[in-house]
Amino acid sequence: MTKSNPGHYFEDFKPGMELVHATPLTVSAGDISLYRALTGARHALYSAETFAAANGFPALPVDPLLAFHVVFGKTVPDISLNAVANLGYADGQFLKDVYPGDTLTAISEVIGIKENSNGKTGVVWVRTRGENQKGETVLSYVRWVMVNKKDPSSPALDPVVPDLPDAVHASALTVPAYDDWDDALAGSKWRYGDYEIGEKIDHVDGMTVEEAEHQIATRLYQNTAKVHFDAHAQKESRFGKRLIYGGVVISIARALSFNGLESAAQMLAINAGTHAGPLFSGDTIYAWSEVLDKATLNDTTGALRLRLVAAKNHPCTDFPLRGEDGKYAGNVILDFDYWAAIPI
Amino acid sequence: MTKSNPGHYFEDFKPGMELVHATPLTVSAGDISLYRALTGARHALYSAETFAAANGFPALPVDPLLAFHVVFGKTVPDISLNAVANLGYADGQFLKDVYPGDTLTAISEVIGIKENSNGKTGVVWVRTRGENQKGETVLSYVRWVMVNKKDPSSPALDPVVPDLPDAVHASALTVPAYDDWDDALAGSKWRYGDYEIGEKIDHVDGMTVEEAEHQIATRLYQNTAKVHFDAHAQKESRFGKRLIYGGVVISIARALSFNGLESAAQMLAINAGTHAGPLFSGDTIYAWSEVLDKATLNDTTGALRLRLVAAKNHPCTDFPLRGEDGKYAGNVILDFDYWAAIPI
Amino acid sequence: MTKSNPGHYFEDFKPGMELVHATPLTVSAGDISLYRALTGARHALYSAETFAAANGFPALPVDPLLAFHVVFGKTVPDISLNAVANLGYADGQFLKDVYPGDTLTAISEVIGIKENSNGKTGVVWVRTRGENQKGETVLSYVRWVMVNKKDPSSPALDPVVPDLPDAVHASALTVPAYDDWDDALAGSKWRYGDYEIGEKIDHVDGMTVEEAEHQIATRLYQNTAKVHFDAHAQKESRFGKRLIYGGVVISIARALSFNGLESAAQMLAINAGTHAGPLFSGDTIYAWSEVLDKATLNDTTGALRLRLVAAKNHPCTDFPLRGEDGKYAGNVILDFDYWAAIPI
Repeated sequence: MTKSNPGHYFEDFKPGMELVHATPLTVSAGDISLYRALTGARHALYSAETFAAANGFPALPVDPLLAFHVVFGKTVPDISLNAVANLGYADGQFLKDVYPGDTLTAISEVIGIKENSNGKTGVVWVRTRGENQKGETVLSYVRWVMVNKKDPSSPALDPVVPDLPDAVHASALTVPAYDDWDDALAGSKWRYGDYEIGEKIDHVDGMTVEEAEHQIATRLYQNTAKVHFDAHAQKESRFGKRLIYGGVVISIARALSFNGLESAAQMLAINAGTHAGPLFSGDTIYAWSEVLDKATLNDTTGALRLRLVAAKNHPCTDFPLRGEDGKYAGNVILDFDYWAAIPI
Repeated sequence: MTKSNPGHYFEDFKPGMELVHATPLTVSAGDISLYRALTGARHALYSAETFAAANGFPALPVDPLLAFHVVFGKTVPDISLNAVANLGYADGQFLKDVYPGDTLTAISEVIGIKENSNGKTGVVWVRTRGENQKGETVLSYVRWVMVNKKDPSSPALDPVVPDLPDAVHASALTVPAYDDWDDALAGSKWRYGDYEIGEKIDHVDGMTVEEAEHQIATRLYQNTAKVHFDAHAQKESRFGKRLIYGGVVISIARALSFNGLESAAQMLAINAGTHAGPLFSGDTIYAWSEVLDKATLNDTTGALRLRLVAAKNHPCTDFPLRGEDGKYAGNVILDFDYWAAIPI
Repeated sequence: MTKSNPGHYFEDFKPGMELVHATPLTVSAGDISLYRALTGARHALYSAETFAAANGFPALPVDPLLAFHVVFGKTVPDISLNAVANLGYADGQFLKDVYPGDTLTAISEVIGIKENSNGKTGVVWVRTRGENQKGETVLSYVRWVMVNKKDPSSPALDPVVPDLPDAVHASALTVPAYDDWDDALAGSKWRYGDYEIGEKIDHVDGMTVEEAEHQIATRLYQNTAKVHFDAHAQKESRFGKRLIYGGVVISIARALSFNGLESAAQMLAINAGTHAGPLFSGDTIYAWSEVLDKATLNDTTGALRLRLVAAKNHPCTDFPLRGEDGKYAGNVILDFDYWAAIPI
C-alpha cells in the first residue's frame, strides 16, 4: 500500500463531509512581492502602506486574489487531484482583510454530489473557507468540479445539488470606507459615478506568459495539480503540453484591468467564473471589462459588478465573448464576474 | 471615450508641469530577495544586516538601483507610453538610503521640450524624484525621451533645453561613513587606493537572460512598457520580439561588476547612461568597467567614478566600446557612468 | 594584474587553511517565499507560523535546505570556481534553526588534499560551516571537489585524506520536540511507527525545470558558478548548454517527497550525496525514497534515515537506481542520504 496521496474519487465525497486541507500558510511580504512580480498588479491599495493607511487599513493588505489562490491551492490534493474539469465558482466572498503574518488554513465542506449519466464521473460541489490564525473566516467560495469515479460500477448516493446564487447580493458585501482616496496616486480620476452599467472597457495591454512564470506562481500558492508542472507526462495528454493554472489567468487579467479600472482596486466578491479555454506558455493575455451592475455601499464607497473577460492572442478592441452559436469565441479563455469596491 | 490610459503625447508636456505618478510602492524584504534572485547582486552591504550595521546603516538598506527602477517604473505610464526612444539619463543622485517599509512615490517635473525638425516627434526632458513616506527625496534624476506627437500639425511651444551637467560633482555626493569594513566579507582586499584612473576591469562572468526573468523583474518595478511584455504585438514590431527593459541590463551588468569591484558597493550618483543596443531573451550579458575619476569623500570613504559597459554575446576581454567610426560596437548594449563609494 | 577573482587552484589549498567567504546574507521572509515558489516545498512546519509555534519553534523557521544552499553558494567563488567536479558530501549537520532576520556567514576549513595521478588535478576536502550573527554554527558539512592545478608541474604536498563517517550517527542529531503535531495540517496520518526499514515510496509527481527557474534559484543563494548562467560560454562546453545547480535538484526532489513523507518535514543531517547525472532545462524531475534506518530521538520524535533518489524524464514507479553493471542508471541524477525528524 502506497503512502503517496491517491487523491479522492467521486465515491469518496459525501454531502456534509468536512476536509481540513494540509499546509496552512503564513502569508508574507515576500508573497506580496512575488504576486506583484508575477502578475503585474499595481493597485495603490495593495502596493503602498501609506495609501492603505489613508483608507482605513491598519497595514498593507494582501491582494484578495492572492489570498484566494492560496486557499484554493490547498484544496487541490483533496478535491481536484482526480478531477476532469473545474466547472465553476459561485458565492465567493472576501470577508476579512488579510495581512502579512496571517496564517491561512483551508477547510472544505462537501455541499453537493451528482453522478453523471455515464457512470464514470460525477460532479462534486464544495464550499471552501479560508481561516486566519484567529479562526476567522477571511474568504469563502463554492466551486464544483467533475471528478472521476474509482470504480464505475460502484453505486451512487442520491444526488444533492446546492442552490447557488447567480451573484452575491450587494447587501452582503463587506464594506470598506475610503477616507482619503488620492486619485493621482490611484492612477485615475474615474470614480463610482463615472462608470455606467453596460459600459465596456478595453484594457489595451497584453501580457505573455512563460512556463517559468506560471509554474512559479502556482507553486507560490502551493497548488500541486500535475497538469501545470509535469511536461514529461503532459506530452501524452490531450494538449501535449502543460496547462496554465486558471488562477494565473484570473490574476493577470485582473492586473491588466488596472488600465481603465484603476480605482476599482478591492475585490469584494466572486459571483461566477468560467475558464472558457486553456492557456499555454507563450500565449498573450488581453482583457476587457463590462460594468454589469452598480451599488452604493456607504457615503464614501460604491461597488461595481464587473465582467472580466480574457482572450488569448487577440487584442480586445472588439470585446470578444461569444460566437453566433452562443459558445465562447475561440480565443476567449476567461469569463469572470465579480464585485469591486470603488470610491464615490 | 475610453477610460484606459492613452499616455501623454509630445504636445501634452509643458515646461514646469508636475506629474504625480500612480501607485506608490512600499518596498519590502521580498523585493530585496527578488532583486538578488533576478540580478545576481551580491554586495555585502545590501545582503547582510550585520555588515550594513557595522558601516553606519540602521538596517539592511535597499540597493539604490532597486529604488531607482521602482521610481522609474512609475513614470512609464505618464512619460514614455508613447515614447519612441529613451535617450539618456543625467544628474542622478541617491540622497537618502531606502529601507524595507519605506513607501516610494514618484513625481516628475517637465524641465525641457524640443520638437524635432520632422514635426512628428519631440524630445521631452523630465526631472523625476522619488519621495519616501516622510516626504524626503531619496533619489532624483533627469531623463529625456523622444515622444510621438499626437497631431503632427499641432504647433510647438518654444524649445526649452535644460543645462545638464556631464557628471554629478564629487562635492555633491551623499557621503557614507564606513566604520568597520571587513574585506573578507566584502569579497576583496582592493580599496580606494588600489584603483587607478584609466584602469579597466573585465568582470569575466556572463549572465544569460530569459523572457520570464526580465518580465518578472520589470513587473517587480511596476514598469508597464508594452514592448517588454506583449509578444503577440511585438511580432509586428521592428525586432519581431520582446525588448528587455534597459534597467534589467543596468542591474545585471552592475551585479557582474562585483567581480573586480567588490567594495565599490554603494552607488551614489548616475552621471549618464546610454542604452546602446537592444537586449533580447537568450542573450548573454558580459561587462567591463573603467575607472574614470576618483575623489576622497572623508576619512573612511572615497568614490570611484566608473564607466560600466555591457556587451551581449561577447566576453569583455577586449573591452569593447566603440568602432573606428566612433559608433558603439555592435555588441555593446550599455554605456553607464556612475559614482560609487568605496572604503579607503 | 586583474582585480577579478581567478578562484583558487589545487596548489592554493593547504590543510588547516581557513577561508571566510564573501557576502554574508540576512535571510528573510522573501527568501522563504521564493524558495517555496521555486521548489514547490509545502511542509507545514516551514509554511505556517502557527504550526511551527505548536511544535516548539519561536517563529517560522527557514527550511534547512534553503540555509544549506545559502551557505554552499558563498563557498563557490573560493572553493569550486576552478572545480572539475563536485564529488560528494558527508557529515552534514543542521545544528540550530534559522529564522528570518538571521545573517549567515560561510567559513570553510581545508581538511584534506590529494593530487590525482595525472598531475593535472587534485581532490580538496573542505568542512564548511554556516554561522549566524551570534557566531553560532547553524549547519556544518564536508564536501570534496576535484580542482584543476594551475601549473601541472608544481610539486604536491603530502596527501591528507580525512576520515569521514558513512552517516551521521543518530545520537549526534539535533533533537526537536513536536508537542502538538496535527496530522491533517501536516498532510498525512503516517508517523514514525508507520514507516519500515526497506520501505520504498514513489513520490509520483513530476516537476519540469525551466532555465529561468534554476537561474533565479541559484542566484537566490548567491551561487555564482558560471556553468549555470552563461549560455554563450556553455555552447562550447561538453554538454553545449547550461547545467542546473545540483542543489536545485536536491530541493525539488525533496519537495516532491512530501507526497508520501509529509511528516518527515525537518531535515536533521545530510549523510551523503551524489549528483549522478546532469539536469538541463526542460527535463522533468521525479523522485522516490527508501527508508534506510530509523531511530527514536525522544518521547515525541523519531528520525528516519532516507535515501532520496531523483530521476529525469522517468517516473519512479520502478524505483530506478543502478544498472546491472553497478553504475547509476542513465536517468538517475541524484542519490541523497539524509536523516529527517518525524513525530512518533
